[in-house]
Parts: sequence; C-alpha cells; structure tokens
Amino acid sequence: MIADSKVFSSRRVNSFAFLSPREFAVIGDEMSHAQHQKLNDLLKESGYQSQDDHISKAPKLVKRRICALKSLQLKSIDIEAAFYKRVHDLEREFEKQFDALFLERKKIVNGEREPSDEEAKQPLIHGLAEEDQKALYDSSGSDEGEVGIPEFWLHCLKSNEATCDLIQEHDEPILKHLTDITAHCTTEPVGFTLEFHFSSNPYFKNTVLKKQYVLNTLPDPEDPFGYEGPECTKIMGDTIQWEDGKDVTKKVVKKKQKKGANAGKFLTKTVKADSFFNFFDNLEKEEENKDNAEGDGEDEEEAYELRAADYEIATTIRDSLIPRAVLFYTGEAAIEDDMFPMGEDDGDDASDSEDGEEEEEE
Amino acid sequence: MIADSKVFSSRRVNSFAFLSPREFAVIGDEMSHAQHQKLNDLLKESGYQSQDDHISKAPKLVKRRICALKSLQLKSIDIEAAFYKRVHDLEREFEKQFDALFLERKKIVNGEREPSDEEAKQPLIHGLAEEDQKALYDSSGSDEGEVGIPEFWLHCLKSNEATCDLIQEHDEPILKHLTDITAHCTTEPVGFTLEFHFSSNPYFKNTVLKKQYVLNTLPDPEDPFGYEGPECTKIMGDTIQWEDGKDVTKKVVKKKQKKGANAGKFLTKTVKADSFFNFFDNLEKEEENKDNAEGDGEDEEEAYELRAADYEIATTIRDSLIPRAVLFYTGEAAIEDDMFPMGEDDGDDASDSEDGEEEEEE
Repeated sequence: MIADSKVFSSRRVNSFAFLSPREFAVIGDEMSHAQHQKLNDLLKESGYQSQDDHISKAPKLVKRRICALKSLQLKSIDIEAAFYKRVHDLEREFEKQFDALFLERKKIVNGEREPSDEEAKQPLIHGLAEEDQKALYDSSGSDEGEVGIPEFWLHCLKSNEATCDLIQEHDEPILKHLTDITAHCTTEPVGFTLEFHFSSNPYFKNTVLKKQYVLNTLPDPEDPFGYEGPECTKIMGDTIQWEDGKDVTKKVVKKKQKKGANAGKFLTKTVKADSFFNFFDNLEKEEENKDNAEGDGEDEEEAYELRAADYEIATTIRDSLIPRAVLFYTGEAAIEDDMFPMGEDDGDDASDSEDGEEEEEE
Repeated sequence: MIADSKVFSSRRVNSFAFLSPREFAVIGDEMSHAQHQKLNDLLKESGYQSQDDHISKAPKLVKRRICALKSLQLKSIDIEAAFYKRVHDLEREFEKQFDALFLERKKIVNGEREPSDEEAKQPLIHGLAEEDQKALYDSSGSDEGEVGIPEFWLHCLKSNEATCDLIQEHDEPILKHLTDITAHCTTEPVGFTLEFHFSSNPYFKNTVLKKQYVLNTLPDPEDPFGYEGPECTKIMGDTIQWEDGKDVTKKVVKKKQKKGANAGKFLTKTVKADSFFNFFDNLEKEEENKDNAEGDGEDEEEAYELRAADYEIATTIRDSLIPRAVLFYTGEAAIEDDMFPMGEDDGDDASDSEDGEEEEEE
C-alpha cells in the first residue's frame, strides 16, 4: 500500500486551494511539443524496436486492435471536452446565486448597509468556548464611526497562503482602498476574470484592476491524447495608471560603474520592485518580447513557471479567497497554511545586478 | 511573484491525477475535531485577547458586521453543496456515454469482436515518425491466434504511477486474468464503486472484486465552515475467495524464539504479504478494531494516511487509468511519471518483527 507523504500532502494542498471543481491545467503549447519530443526519446530509449517490448513484439492483429482502441480514445476525449463545457455552464448558472450573496457582503464590508439582528446572530469565531468569545468582546475598541469593516480585503489577502507573500509593506496603504474582489466566468472567450475594486485613492486612477484568463476547452488537434481538460492559454493583466511618484512596482537604484569610461561614477536606473501589484503585469506581452528575442529553453521554462504560479494564485483567489473571504479575515481558514506550509519565496525578482555594477536603493 | 516549485508540481501532479473535476477531500471526522482544537490553540497563542489583533480590538459595531458575514458564509456554503450535487448528477449523465465506449473497448480487449478497418485507422503511437512507426511493425511477433489484446490491464496497471508500485511479481499471473476495470457513480449512498472483472482463474472464485467509496456531500453541522466539497467517509473492500494455497496476500514465516520456554525453537506464523490485492482490504473493519482497542493518536494518523493514500489511488484509477487505459498500455500516458516522480514506498507493510523473534520466509 502506498503511503507516500508527497501524494498525501499534494492532495491536501489541492483540496484546500481548489474548492470548486474547476480543474484547469496550465500546460502551454510549448510544453506539449516538449512532451512529444520527450515521448519520442523515451520510446526509442525504452526500445520500441526491441523484441522484449509488448508493443513492438505484438502480432499485427493485436496491433490492429490497439489502433482501434486509439480511435475509441479519441471519441472518449471528445465526450470529456463536452463534459467540461457543461461544468462551465453549471458554474455560470451558480455564479448568479453566489454573486447575490457576495453583493450583500460588499455592502456590509463597505458600510452601505447595517446587518439585521437576525444576520448578526452568528458567533464571531466558530467553535470558540463561550468565555473566549466573551473575552473577544471585552477588548473591543471604541466605536469611532468606523464605516463597514475597515481593511477587510487587506486582512483577507494577508491571511491567504497564495497571496500573503505577494504583499509588501508599501502595498498595504494601497490595499486598504480595496473594496471588493470579484470573479466571473466569461464565454467569449471561455475563461474567467478577476476584478479588484478600489475606492478613490491617491495612488492610481483605476477604480478596477482586472486580470483575464483565457482557457482552451477543446483538445489540441496536434496532441489530442494529451487532453486533460481546459487549459489556460492566455493571461492578460491590466495597466495601472499610477499617480506621479506613487508606482510601488518600480524603484530607482544607484549603480556604481566598475568598468569602462564611467568607472567609479554612479548611474541611476529604474528597476522592478517586489509588489502585490506586479500581479497585474501582462505576462502575454513578456511572452511576445521573449519570442522576438528567440529566448532559450531556460527562458521558456521560466516563463512557463511564472504563468503556472500566476494561474495557481488566480484560481486560489477565485475558488478560496473570494468564496471564503470572512474566514480568511478572521483567520479561521488560515490554519491550513500552518498545517501544510508552502515554503517561502526566496527569489528576489527585483534583483537586476550585472557584472561590474553595484546596486544600492535610493 | 511566487514561483514555488512545490506549488507548481502539486498543481501538475493534481492536473494529471484528477482529470475529471471531482474534487473530493478525504478529511475524516476525527480531523475536523483535531482542527478545531488546533484552531482554538492558535487563537489563544496568536493573542485574540491582545489589543493588537484586528478581530479583538474591532469595535462592537464592526464585530456585529463580521458576524453578519458569517451568516452569509453559511448560505454560500449551502449553495456550494448544491453545486457539488449538480456536478455529481452531471457525472452520472455522462457516465452512460463513456460506458458505451468502454464497453466497445472491453469487447476488443477480450476478443469478443474484431475492429472495423475504419476503427483501426489510428496510428499505433501518436506523433511517432513514419519510419519508427514502420519499425514497430517490422518486429511484430507471429500471430498464434491471440485473443484480443493479451495482458492489457496488467500492462495498464504497471504503467500507471498510482498503481505500479502496488504490483508484486506474484500478482502478475493473477492480473493477467483481469478483463476490465469499471467505475460507477452511486446515489444511495452517494459515492462511487470500482469493479475489477476477472476471467475464470485458478487463484480465486470471485469474478468481480469491488471497492466502494461513500461520500458525504453536505457540510458537517458541527463544522460547517470547514466544508470543502464532498468528503470520503467510508471505504469498503471486498472478500477475496482465494483457492487453497493461492492467497498471495499472506505468507508464512518461521520465527525463532529467543526468550522464554520455547527459546531456540522455530514457530511458524502467517503474516501479511505485499500484494496488489491488499487494495481490497476492508479499511473500515480495521477502523472499528482500532476504536475498540482505543488506538492512540499515532494509530489514528496512520489509519488516516492509509485511507488518504487509498482514496488517491482510487480516484487515479477512476479519473485517469480507466478513461485513458490504452494510453497507459502503450506507455504514451506514462511520461508524467518520469517528469514528476512520486517517490518510492520504502515502508514494509509485511514486516511484523517483534522483540526476541527472528523472521525468515518459508
């Protein structure tokens, strides 16, 4: 009996991160070609021409039957694609019911209405002993006319394992203006959008920052047997219209030239800074640039991993953060984080050091 | 931007293992209580009574609004449960279409009919260069009246990453008699069954070995906020009616007594042996025995992991092995295994060594 801890924990991580049954792989086209190459190599390595292989040594009549099973497999994959289409329809149908509740949540969070006594009957923290529940109320701050639930979404994002590491100190004052996060299925093209709604603020002009995910729901004609359900084929970000000097996604660094004519002099250079708002970067644009530059395999792999990580965050926001926001706000949903730590991101995206240059933040 | 490889690979493992969007967590009741305790501890540790916590220091009017969001959350979770119910209905609806194709596959695999020329048009291996394809045919064995596709399911099971490690050498002659594997949704109780169909064989009397999985689709009234979709609550195995001396799940070992009155003498003892057929063990029965014996926390955790691993295997068989059997048979689906190795099971379930005893296989 297998009792592999990796299987087990990936199951748990998964069951946490993907609450709704939207199972979308994020395998780009480039991967399916790479897989093909790999398969071909494997087939040769594992000796498809040798006599001890069950495929090559199979009599021709048996081979003919295997070919027939491949035909049946194609039909089966077409039915799967039809199934996923129906799941998408089901999600759209239920979206209306969820949205009605999320709208009420938005009103309460932003002080557009006060809850009824009936609504406010639920205990603050589920399953907490009565004395602990009371103690929570004993330490209540004085009501100084707070509107709604201040900093609600900032607390949610900071307590969700997929988003907490994205948030830098300089992002927090901006995220206090976040009034709602919504997700919607789209049909043309098939996919979904995430929308981050902001109140009027001194940081940027946008009232909504949008991220769009396009899915291919059909099998790839070049690789029909590789079908594993809808694949994310395109991730579109948004352009943040930053107010002057407020763009936290960029920072100016001084670089001391070590070589060449300018050796010893300091030059200033604007580089990317860590920020939650890098989430709105347009990954597709980067893809195109990379294609023009004829990126090598390593670049491709990096771009692929970046897209996969982005998609992971997006589906967690859609399937976990949005439908369970208050549980992240109170911290009740955050214990998963502790039970299965996801590891820290040690990489420094903003690092842009080159040979012969020293970097120093201004 | 998070680019955590664990997130990424768990996503891929998941997208491979769970092709259909059946997202079922396998959290037993005992876990939800443990989680509660943990939450309570965490709440205290993280200082819910202290002034710097956003929940405890929130003014009472803000707390009242949070309580109202908890009411909305409960309604939202009820809609989720209704959604999962509809997904289950959708799976039942599509099952008929898949079953019609799987029945044709069964006929061809077991030689009940020959495919038409139209059916046999698909190439043996997708995407293989023409000369390699031809080479596969050059090495064909002579047709000695083979019926269907010999050892089809044995090859499938050996090339699937969830099942390959379960198969021991002594299982192989038995698994050559496997004629089909089928999966079916059940409604009363809600869940699914796996059925392994065998031709008449000298090893056991059963023609079908069945495994049943019961799911709870509704939120737990004690822990409604912990709802993450249907949970597997019961796993039922089957009783294999082994022919005399054919039970590969047991082995007789000699034990040399080191202490006591029988010191120096050999005693024989029947112990559990590694075997694919342990998959049909009744995990529930073990659970009950354990309850009677008032098992400690470690036993509980072990039982939980055993059930989680079993469920992982079952869903892989249902969502991957059955719908893509021919791709495992040809090895085309097996490359995932290579890309994300799942690790070996180093544990030796059959080991039963005790103090003062030496073990030796007969």
